[in-house]
Amino acid sequence: MAAEIVNPRSDNKPGHTDQDGGAEPLDSFDPAFALHRGGKMAVQATVPVRDKDDLSLAYTPGVARVCTAIAEQPELVHDYTWKSSVVAVVTDGTAVLGLGDIGPEASLPVMEGKAILFKQFGGVDAVPIALACTGVDEIVETVVRLAPSFGGVNLEDISAPRCFEIERKLQERLDIPVFHDDQHGTAVVTLAALRNAARLSGRSIADLRAVISGAGAAGVAIARMLVEAGIGEVAVADRKGIVSADRDDLTSVKRDVAGFTNKAGLTGSLEDALSGADVFIGVSGGTVPEAAVASMAEGAFVFAMANPDPEVHPDVAHKYAAVVATGRSDFPNQINNVLAFPGIFAGALQVRASRITEGMKIAAAEALAGVVGDDLAADYVIPSPFDERVAPAVTSAVAAAARAEGVARR
Amino acid sequence: MAAEIVNPRSDNKPGHTDQDGGAEPLDSFDPAFALHRGGKMAVQATVPVRDKDDLSLAYTPGVARVCTAIAEQPELVHDYTWKSSVVAVVTDGTAVLGLGDIGPEASLPVMEGKAILFKQFGGVDAVPIALACTGVDEIVETVVRLAPSFGGVNLEDISAPRCFEIERKLQERLDIPVFHDDQHGTAVVTLAALRNAARLSGRSIADLRAVISGAGAAGVAIARMLVEAGIGEVAVADRKGIVSADRDDLTSVKRDVAGFTNKAGLTGSLEDALSGADVFIGVSGGTVPEAAVASMAEGAFVFAMANPDPEVHPDVAHKYAAVVATGRSDFPNQINNVLAFPGIFAGALQVRASRITEGMKIAAAEALAGVVGDDLAADYVIPSPFDERVAPAVTSAVAAAARAEGVARR
Repeated sequence: MAAEIVNPRSDNKPGHTDQDGGAEPLDSFDPAFALHRGGKMAVQATVPVRDKDDLSLAYTPGVARVCTAIAEQPELVHDYTWKSSVVAVVTDGTAVLGLGDIGPEASLPVMEGKAILFKQFGGVDAVPIALACTGVDEIVETVVRLAPSFGGVNLEDISAPRCFEIERKLQERLDIPVFHDDQHGTAVVTLAALRNAARLSGRSIADLRAVISGAGAAGVAIARMLVEAGIGEVAVADRKGIVSADRDDLTSVKRDVAGFTNKAGLTGSLEDALSGADVFIGVSGGTVPEAAVASMAEGAFVFAMANPDPEVHPDVAHKYAAVVATGRSDFPNQINNVLAFPGIFAGALQVRASRITEGMKIAAAEALAGVVGDDLAADYVIPSPFDERVAPAVTSAVAAAARAEGVARR
Repeated sequence: MAAEIVNPRSDNKPGHTDQDGGAEPLDSFDPAFALHRGGKMAVQATVPVRDKDDLSLAYTPGVARVCTAIAEQPELVHDYTWKSSVVAVVTDGTAVLGLGDIGPEASLPVMEGKAILFKQFGGVDAVPIALACTGVDEIVETVVRLAPSFGGVNLEDISAPRCFEIERKLQERLDIPVFHDDQHGTAVVTLAALRNAARLSGRSIADLRAVISGAGAAGVAIARMLVEAGIGEVAVADRKGIVSADRDDLTSVKRDVAGFTNKAGLTGSLEDALSGADVFIGVSGGTVPEAAVASMAEGAFVFAMANPDPEVHPDVAHKYAAVVATGRSDFPNQINNVLAFPGIFAGALQVRASRITEGMKIAAAEALAGVVGDDLAADYVIPSPFDERVAPAVTSAVAAAARAEGVARR
């Protein structure tokens, strides 16, 4: 599935032909810098432009006939341009990895990384768009203006709570999918792992009580998705403790969370919530004491996804939990968004979906869980990011769900 | 120089895997549609993402070190991302080819065409950005917000007179090159052809009187550049006749034009201006009667660049003129912007120029003229777009001029 690497290095790019002076020591010091020199991506022509005849079709005068046809029948833009295969990877650089608000330029290596993952794993063309503005309405307006050129918008590394409003407003105004991966990508992969963990232990997720540590983009989206998927009970904790309706320090997003989670009305600390819980889901970057893990129910699932330092070390978690997952590639059961976003967008683009619905996300999670099949085991509740079955499975499931939900346009 | 075509067709793109129903008849009817199916471009990774180790350098955790370095030393963004090899091809779809205001979606085939010409001829990565807004300040603000992701901005097919103000305001606010190709690309290639025509006839351009038909983006830019290059005399005519200070119907741009052209104070029609003139430059889309061409000076140059129908047919022009050029590929001496913009941007990006100065444009024109060398002839005053010497010559000349003018940053 991974596309062939065409240009092994991009040293002949215009901006990178000469010596780069003071920057070079970094390259010999750290292979990550050497690899990043000149960037990680390029554009290529997919049609020939070798002679006059080629030019007369790909450019003037032939191109004018294609333009005229689109002007007369706007939906043809999906057939005769790259619109329906290209996604804008949009950030404002305010919440980049664990680095925080480092600004648009410094976020670009991550956005390029995301773009090449889109291509390699989903066959989706993606373009990094790092914006020099951070206001909700500025970002929304800018992306709306860009949208004619793109078949979808992947929001990335935009800090909470602005990310929620930006996504909602954009989806209201655009008829192409808008997807904040830090929310929904993480939620889809988490749900897939949870479904398989439940299957392994012969339980339904309706019987499980989950506790999520972290009420940012990922925590809120996971909570919403678990409820949508029929979890028995879920509570969310932020740095001040369990999110509950009686707290008077909640943002409007957290008030929403209090409304659709924590049916038991728990109050107190994260540790209080964990006592007797079946599932821990960490997306906080904080730590959880061993005693709190020990207080969970028999056969618990611990998904400690903070990166690079899980909330509880897997070796400690294994003493008490039946299934342990992390965000790290050097432990089993890596909860990695790359399992979800390439296939989700590929499926949505394939049927020209106008949005990505809850049903499409749940279909993605189920397809992802399904790849594990009969090989299910405590150290294999989620496939490897390099499992070539993943993206096609997610793509077809998402395309089918889009059709079933009436948001497909072909 | 032209890069290898990697994906012969893009049929396996997400939006193009199934039958396209009603659109297919167009494809069998017209090869331009068949060629455009699925678009003309794609993104590719230039680094491998084949296993965990690759991912740990190109993405987390390795990418975080690169992001941190850029946050601390902002200029490193040019070294470690594709920023300094990628140009945004920005339009609002208001003046697309000769089709007029067809909107952003319908303009996309032209923008993709431009992007692949950038790549094939200059090795420059380019991304089509067709905007859903047409106000000057909206466009300026949007492009300023996008700019962190790009090393340059090529404005395209934006109607006059808005294009002038948009370019000026953008260049004031950005420290990367902003270049409206419909203006300056055309002007550079025209100047190159004119220099060679003058050389052929043993004259200096200081001895020539030129008349430009058309006071849109191209006409105004050509006039400005000819004055900059030392033309003896130049007058511009719009649909109402010669642009002169005594007219009371001039836009502010045309008032400017009246100020720096037409030193002789000509009034009247285009035909009046042509009488005795040495050079005709047509960028109007109108027509010029044979009698007006016949009234030009002995050994005149006729550059009838309207496309697809030149202002005067080359066969007619040849009866009176020493050198004839058009915008068409099926006659000799094609004035084609692709001779200029790929090398101009490649040169500017190579030295990380903060802008494209008049001196850089004149250097580009001279380099382009120089490629013709000793083969100079009446039917060869400008190289073919497929001459592989063109882009390298323009690139080096522009890079050197940027250094000489103090706008290079490396």
